[in-house]
Amino acid sequence: MALEFQISRRVQFSETDMAGVMHFSNYYRLMEDTEHAFWRSVGLSVMTVDGGRRISWPRVATQCEHFAPVRFEDELEVSLVVGQVGDRSVTYEVEFRSGGKRVAAGRMKAVCCATMDGHFESISIPDVIRRKLEAQAASV
Amino acid sequence: MALEFQISRRVQFSETDMAGVMHFSNYYRLMEDTEHAFWRSVGLSVMTVDGGRRISWPRVATQCEHFAPVRFEDELEVSLVVGQVGDRSVTYEVEFRSGGKRVAAGRMKAVCCATMDGHFESISIPDVIRRKLEAQAASV
Amino acid sequence: MALEFQISRRVQFSETDMAGVMHFSNYYRLMEDTEHAFWRSVGLSVMTVDGGRRISWPRVATQCEHFAPVRFEDELEVSLVVGQVGDRSVTYEVEFRSGGKRVAAGRMKAVCCATMDGHFESISIPDVIRRKLEAQAASV
Amino acid sequence: MALEFQISRRVQFSETDMAGVMHFSNYYRLMEDTEHAFWRSVGLSVMTVDGGRRISWPRVATQCEHFAPVRFEDELEVSLVVGQVGDRSVTYEVEFRSGGKRVAAGRMKAVCCATMDGHFESISIPDVIRRKLEAQAASV
Repeated sequence: MALEFQISRRVQFSETDMAGVMHFSNYYRLMEDTEHAFWRSVGLSVMTVDGGRRISWPRVATQCEHFAPVRFEDELEVSLVVGQVGDRSVTYEVEFRSGGKRVAAGRMKAVCCATMDGHFESISIPDVIRRKLEAQAASV
Repeated sequence: MALEFQISRRVQFSETDMAGVMHFSNYYRLMEDTEHAFWRSVGLSVMTVDGGRRISWPRVATQCEHFAPVRFEDELEVSLVVGQVGDRSVTYEVEFRSGGKRVAAGRMKAVCCATMDGHFESISIPDVIRRKLEAQAASV
Repeated sequence: MALEFQISRRVQFSETDMAGVMHFSNYYRLMEDTEHAFWRSVGLSVMTVDGGRRISWPRVATQCEHFAPVRFEDELEVSLVVGQVGDRSVTYEVEFRSGGKRVAAGRMKAVCCATMDGHFESISIPDVIRRKLEAQAASV
Repeated sequence: MALEFQISRRVQFSETDMAGVMHFSNYYRLMEDTEHAFWRSVGLSVMTVDGGRRISWPRVATQCEHFAPVRFEDELEVSLVVGQVGDRSVTYEVEFRSGGKRVAAGRMKAVCCATMDGHFESISIPDVIRRKLEAQAASV
């Protein structure tokens, strides 16, 4: 089984909408927050410099399914698994649980890019990063 | 062909991130803004009251693919097509274009619910709403 | 001296803007997150029911001064002091520190309201709440 | 009287909160959106390059007072007046009206900075920009 990286986060008031629940766009922000916390947990930052190039990871595909709403002050557990690590991309699987229930599940595919001023060029994942991603994924 | 409903919207500064482009979570907010503008265009509001019940449309599945970034002050054209209209749900297909280029494409599935205080119960789409959604979709 | 309530929070990627720093609107969201964490710390929720009335605290005046920017993954310490407690309102003073430096300072005045469906009527702060706010402030 | 620059903007669903009204942090985003629309109206962009330096305008002080809430799909009129233009800073006065009523009023002070990677150094406002700001303000 793959290693699961997990954070815990309470739903904030500004994340709710007039229907009384967390707005769906915030699940995407939380997926990314969790990804970045995972990077820190293995001693990396998702925004880094490698061999003079500034590296960034734009998302090329994201998705989320919702099974139940969450409300203000609910405690959310977000867990992330590193899925496929390609030459230039990585896919994450993310689950949201609250009160013992699976409330949502998502996926993000991000591409390793050299970046400057909002311009991106995809590159092979540098070895130092690849090793960390594969170590997390390879625990399958 | 289905009728395409379209809005035009400039990328705002607060929607950019440190990589210099619009943050991916904002595409989801724009998909929904476009859906709601479509509802207004056919004389409805997405938050309404029908037969004493307050109706809301929580998303049960959303996704987006990104082909190119957009930057501060870029003009975005977002077009929405009503896809499948089920007994209790509707699916929208959304495209983002900028500078003549297709930059992203997404999809949202929303479920018709009677709602109160952050609690939802799915219901059959009321006829007055169904007719409008099908009229838009049926132009296929 | 007044009791200081403090939370610690890392700047997230989605909170940055194309200038490479946390967007100023997020300081306001963090002020409010801190207020709500303070309420929880004294056994209350900012959204509550008292004597059949649903109570909410809309902001009537907010402000923030910025002394230095903060960047992605910076650790922010946000501290909140309960200032003046009026018959129907409360004022909070908030400070933001990062890396040992005071980076911003703000203030929020919120009014106690009975609320329904986006309509508000100001009311005297219920005693159970007043006692908690004054206990925090009175430690002056 | 100073020239008033105005935009019109509908309150979006994702801008509401569980109290059923537009969350207060969004007034700050709208103030800035209006400022940037004003810059475009005089042929400038708030993010620009002048003499090889990249120029940005971080906010050093912002504030807002709220007189009445606004709700989903309300039409907001935001008007901006250029107030004091200093050597390195400019202050804007902003008013929000909806349904013929003044619902909020705010102020932003921004400082002209040469910027690189999230670092800022305040500079005198370049002449080409100063002339436009003063033209708008000087109509007093």
